[in-house]
Amino acid sequence: MSLHFLGNSVTLENVYIASSGTVCGPLEYLGPLGSCFDKSLQDYHYGEKSFEKAERKMLRDALDICLKREKLKYKDIDLYLGSDLLNQITSVNYLARELPQPFVGLYGACSGFALSMAMAGLLIDAGYVDKIVTMVSSHNATAERQYRYPVEYGVQKKDTTTFTATGAVSTLLTKQPQSVRVEAITLGRVIDYSQNDANDMGRAMAPAAFDTLVNHFQDLKRTFHDYDLVVTGDLSMYGHQILKEMLQRHKMDVVRYNDCGCMLYDLSSQPVFQGGSGCACSALVTMGSLYPQLKDKKLKRVLVVSTGALLSPMMSAQKESIPCIAHAISLEAIE
Amino acid sequence: MSLHFLGNSVTLENVYIASSGTVCGPLEYLGPLGSCFDKSLQDYHYGEKSFEKAERKMLRDALDICLKREKLKYKDIDLYLGSDLLNQITSVNYLARELPQPFVGLYGACSGFALSMAMAGLLIDAGYVDKIVTMVSSHNATAERQYRYPVEYGVQKKDTTTFTATGAVSTLLTKQPQSVRVEAITLGRVIDYSQNDANDMGRAMAPAAFDTLVNHFQDLKRTFHDYDLVVTGDLSMYGHQILKEMLQRHKMDVVRYNDCGCMLYDLSSQPVFQGGSGCACSALVTMGSLYPQLKDKKLKRVLVVSTGALLSPMMSAQKESIPCIAHAISLEAIE
Repeated sequence: MSLHFLGNSVTLENVYIASSGTVCGPLEYLGPLGSCFDKSLQDYHYGEKSFEKAERKMLRDALDICLKREKLKYKDIDLYLGSDLLNQITSVNYLARELPQPFVGLYGACSGFALSMAMAGLLIDAGYVDKIVTMVSSHNATAERQYRYPVEYGVQKKDTTTFTATGAVSTLLTKQPQSVRVEAITLGRVIDYSQNDANDMGRAMAPAAFDTLVNHFQDLKRTFHDYDLVVTGDLSMYGHQILKEMLQRHKMDVVRYNDCGCMLYDLSSQPVFQGGSGCACSALVTMGSLYPQLKDKKLKRVLVVSTGALLSPMMSAQKESIPCIAHAISLEAIE
Repeated sequence: MSLHFLGNSVTLENVYIASSGTVCGPLEYLGPLGSCFDKSLQDYHYGEKSFEKAERKMLRDALDICLKREKLKYKDIDLYLGSDLLNQITSVNYLARELPQPFVGLYGACSGFALSMAMAGLLIDAGYVDKIVTMVSSHNATAERQYRYPVEYGVQKKDTTTFTATGAVSTLLTKQPQSVRVEAITLGRVIDYSQNDANDMGRAMAPAAFDTLVNHFQDLKRTFHDYDLVVTGDLSMYGHQILKEMLQRHKMDVVRYNDCGCMLYDLSSQPVFQGGSGCACSALVTMGSLYPQLKDKKLKRVLVVSTGALLSPMMSAQKESIPCIAHAISLEAIE
């Protein structure tokens, strides 16, 4: 029987990660975690005629790698959940035409990874289905074109900018015991601290990450010390620093905390400004780097807080500030 | 304990509709169901400076009406689910800033109503939470501007066009027994029959509705005769006719079937082309008209199949066809 939410969180009993597939872009491959990913793009077109089609191809490849590992076909999965950054979550919706099973589209901007994993966890632990695959992606050129300017324009970037990660990640969740499980989730609230600069998403999202972290710890009576590592999704340098300060002012002992946007790249040498962002950012770091470490018992328990700026360019043009959200999943190695 | 999916469907045991709030636009008010709705707009601006802000105000009003009926405050709800047609599901995401509880954003284009109701039903029946509010909206001027042309341009419409309904609907779902329940759901697959005309969504979506209906009936061993009424979301005249033919060719006895896009307006006198579309279309008809009839036992069991064209204008520009989806919920009056 499913457990009841405690505040905004719930612990899960039988939700395991059975497989994953990770595809990254050129800069992600050259970053410190490059060797962790299953496949990488040589260039942003990936042999396709448009960046959008390239993003979809990454998603398909990540899905195929994920399923092949477990010798599964598309039809063996009970339900697919997907999320990406494009209007109408185009990448996952258009890929889902190729899938013979039900599809649920989720939108949480860059929080899509934890959001889809959390929803999948809830549906599996309730006993509704046995196998769910989550799919998330982001692509630097498609996201920049949509949210700011086409990369080809060469618009000068602000120092506070983050760099949308290019990548796609597919994760197979199941109720059959495996070496790593999703043991708890916290769903986020939409938080808006009146930041309205679309070139400074890290700072806009920090309060949402703060809110979800505080709720997670409070709901489940935990602290940073209950985790070997706590990562936020894509606050990057500025946002991650602000979050730390907010947590410390809240009298929290912040230990073993990092941000996926800072982990995915070498910030001192790669041209990514404050660090990475995008759905793929927390997804690549988690499934490419943390998941294998959990499988190898190098990490025992990790909290992933994917952050999302729910920015609408239309609303920014109407002078509104940026609503943000963060969803959290706790991953645990099985003894 | 939750039941397991049968194919793409599951029957629910304890999911009830406790309240709803419906706000409609001017044409919807003048239609045959006008008197069913709680509130209506005099004009498309609704006292706001932009159509997007007007859409959000409708959503807020629908939510407030829904909660006031049960004397509940925003904080009394465990979880909010929302879906709308705008890029970044702007209307629900920006409204969610005002909500003190977790929010999950869903995207299924015009299928958002049944999608959010289905997901809410799953989470409640599993025992995770007690009260979920779903929120959906669409606005003729915001959707037309985004998907086709600003209404003010006065572009001549094709005969096959549907008319995006203006409205917002909020529904409170709970595990506490009420007079109407959500007794089964079917999640849809993404279906694409290679239709690529953004001015003919009804015909594009008919195959998705067909797929979900066939799966629903097959999964739960039912037929049209198990329902007092079966409605699709927004296929409107052409699409609804095509669906009927597809079902009949599939040897199905199609009885008591209608389409919300044809029910919301007087097609013979109102300027809505083939009929209504948009998230609000199936939501207004279901919660404004069918739900009261279920409460009054005039209807015993109704199947609502919300249809969605997952169209991305960017992909249409890249000459791709339109992926579509349909999700179904079965509503039943309690003896």
